[in-house]
Amino acid sequence: MTVEMVFVGTELLLGNIVNTNAQFLSEQCAALGLPVYYQSVVGDNAGRMEEVILAALGRSDMVLLCGGLGPTEDDLTKEICARVMGISLTEDGRVKKSLEDFVSRLGLPMTANVYKQAMVPEGARPIGEWEGAEGENCWILPNANGTAPGLVMEKKGKTAILLPGPPGELKPMFLDSVRPYLMGKSGQVLSSALIKVCGVGESLAETMVLDLVDAQTNPTIATYAKNNEVHIRVTAAASTEKEAKKLLKPCVRELKKRFGDSVYTVKPEVTLEMALVKLLKKYDLTMTTAESCTGGMAAARLVSVPGVSAFFSEGFVTYSDQAKHTLLGVKKGTLKKYTAVSAQTALEMAVGGAAANRSDLCISVTGIAGPGGGTKKIPVGRVYIGCWLRGETVVKEYTFSGSREKIREYAASAALDLARRSILDYFRK
Amino acid sequence: MTVEMVFVGTELLLGNIVNTNAQFLSEQCAALGLPVYYQSVVGDNAGRMEEVILAALGRSDMVLLCGGLGPTEDDLTKEICARVMGISLTEDGRVKKSLEDFVSRLGLPMTANVYKQAMVPEGARPIGEWEGAEGENCWILPNANGTAPGLVMEKKGKTAILLPGPPGELKPMFLDSVRPYLMGKSGQVLSSALIKVCGVGESLAETMVLDLVDAQTNPTIATYAKNNEVHIRVTAAASTEKEAKKLLKPCVRELKKRFGDSVYTVKPEVTLEMALVKLLKKYDLTMTTAESCTGGMAAARLVSVPGVSAFFSEGFVTYSDQAKHTLLGVKKGTLKKYTAVSAQTALEMAVGGAAANRSDLCISVTGIAGPGGGTKKIPVGRVYIGCWLRGETVVKEYTFSGSREKIREYAASAALDLARRSILDYFRK
Repeated sequence: MTVEMVFVGTELLLGNIVNTNAQFLSEQCAALGLPVYYQSVVGDNAGRMEEVILAALGRSDMVLLCGGLGPTEDDLTKEICARVMGISLTEDGRVKKSLEDFVSRLGLPMTANVYKQAMVPEGARPIGEWEGAEGENCWILPNANGTAPGLVMEKKGKTAILLPGPPGELKPMFLDSVRPYLMGKSGQVLSSALIKVCGVGESLAETMVLDLVDAQTNPTIATYAKNNEVHIRVTAAASTEKEAKKLLKPCVRELKKRFGDSVYTVKPEVTLEMALVKLLKKYDLTMTTAESCTGGMAAARLVSVPGVSAFFSEGFVTYSDQAKHTLLGVKKGTLKKYTAVSAQTALEMAVGGAAANRSDLCISVTGIAGPGGGTKKIPVGRVYIGCWLRGETVVKEYTFSGSREKIREYAASAALDLARRSILDYFRK
Repeated sequence: MTVEMVFVGTELLLGNIVNTNAQFLSEQCAALGLPVYYQSVVGDNAGRMEEVILAALGRSDMVLLCGGLGPTEDDLTKEICARVMGISLTEDGRVKKSLEDFVSRLGLPMTANVYKQAMVPEGARPIGEWEGAEGENCWILPNANGTAPGLVMEKKGKTAILLPGPPGELKPMFLDSVRPYLMGKSGQVLSSALIKVCGVGESLAETMVLDLVDAQTNPTIATYAKNNEVHIRVTAAASTEKEAKKLLKPCVRELKKRFGDSVYTVKPEVTLEMALVKLLKKYDLTMTTAESCTGGMAAARLVSVPGVSAFFSEGFVTYSDQAKHTLLGVKKGTLKKYTAVSAQTALEMAVGGAAANRSDLCISVTGIAGPGGGTKKIPVGRVYIGCWLRGETVVKEYTFSGSREKIREYAASAALDLARRSILDYFRK
């Protein structure tokens, strides 16, 4: 079954927004093993939309249409798609009721054009009532985060799936309704794990799994580079979820063995900072941060984790030599002899930060983010990262490449990762 | 002249990357007044690429093709586009030489497949040699940031422009070569200004320029919401650059008058933190930061500006009440009576941060970023931002909406903006 995507919206053609839905749906289809050969973007124009939808339904088995389901006159996707497929629309009482409930919950007045969204294919049923039947069926997909419901329209061996454009509505609707529908159609259940790896470069990671990727059948393995991390998606297909999960297990175990401590989670929703905070919680550790070139990025990522306040109370941004001395107690002699960008300074920053905050752990970052300031001995991108954990210290030297922003992002990731690895090492002893 | 875009690359169809080139090129075409009706994405497959390119050249005057120009066997865009247009390719000595220079500069060995990129349309000339001629011409676009040159191929009233896929190569090539080519073709020179506004909501900003947008002919006006800012692009067309710039002036002046201090720059490359650092430099002010819920985001944005070290030496991340008291001297009584999320605490944080760092200015941020922690009196999204500038203080209350991440980003922007406005106010007196 081939799938293609049509994105409707003049705001995409004008460059007002980035099409993040395209990446999300593409990744989801890839994980479901569905080949996507084409994607199109078209504006809110009836003639051009009809042309694009006809071409898509002509060459692919299934078309995901995103956007243009709203209440305004410009929202034409449903009407045109139904006409092209020869499907008539009618007002649905249940959808109408849920629209009225949604609008009144927001305290807004009900306007006539809202009812446009209650028009659905004749005989369409809520997606929950689907029982695996094949043929000319239509289903309504509930929208918990907006007014326009989604739709599935099947006719003559072709399927159109209509989704709202806002990512906050499209993503949950896809995960809650479309994904199970697609799995139901294939008679297969898919189960995925996402092995998130930090501290291993993309090429090295690819090489480390090459034999598994070459030998893959079920489960399948795919690697993605994401910022300073590599994510490995493992997907197994089976007739039951239990069986699919069972197929996943040995592969996930093998990958965890190969990447060891570099794997910080196998759950898609867990970030590096969340994994670190989980460890702080597990071992009841407090931590602080002493940052120079990252200027607070590592602290800000920690604070992005809800509930971090039990483990993180304060952080230091010490951009000048003076601040490193005054706030963290880095010796003036160290700064003079080794300079601010040195392993020795990173070490004293970590020791001093932990002492100032009386915390169990402190990470430190000092480096040259560029674009200026590099020398032959200490090039742009050189970063020293230190970690003090209850008296044990470690300092690492990195040379990152890229823009000032990229170097700083990499450095913040590497600092959080070093804290994570230090905790694992400490409590393994 | 209608334009459409074709993006080539299986990595887009698999969702490995977000298509940021689409937004960039769409925004550029909109600024040039070129209507874009279609965009397509297709994989590295000869048959499907040919089908998509044929359809695009059939319905649009000009097609921008992005990606698939590299040295590997999968890179087919040039070969297929040339075949479809009936153009023959030949090796170009100058391109070959520049490929060899580029590869040797990187210290890499020259491999046979690199020479594939020296194949250009017969008779193609470097873009600089363009003299405004119409007809069946081809040009070579130099690539300062990679190996594959870009190409312009004109034949039978249709034009194909081939650009490399990596954004770091595509963007400068578009700005340096394609934009002037397009302006040359239209016989018009375009000049743009980008009025960046902070602290005014999107709907309010749109309402404030509605009459100008409705009355627009030349210059044209378009508004874009970007994170916590609104950007207003004004574009004038004329036969000379001088004339175009002259047409821009009254419109830019009017917008600056309407938005007053909310305008922080009219230059596309200037960010809010850069505008703030420029003011620190102008008035020779040092500043510091005292952050709670933003956890270092404001400091990190300041440090993103190269050369900020002369004005910013340290920042405080005080997430706990204890840290606010110890590091910033917020009174225990204040924290008890008003709580940490209050105007009074924000005020004492700003005063105490400036005193601790002996700086001229300090901004403070304290709030509830959610998802938990909100009360009926102090809801999630409530943020107090303070600013102390040489003895003058101001505190503002905000209620932001969205995710924890969004609320924190908005708060960091608002803090930087409050520092900027405070400096303007202070030195106007």
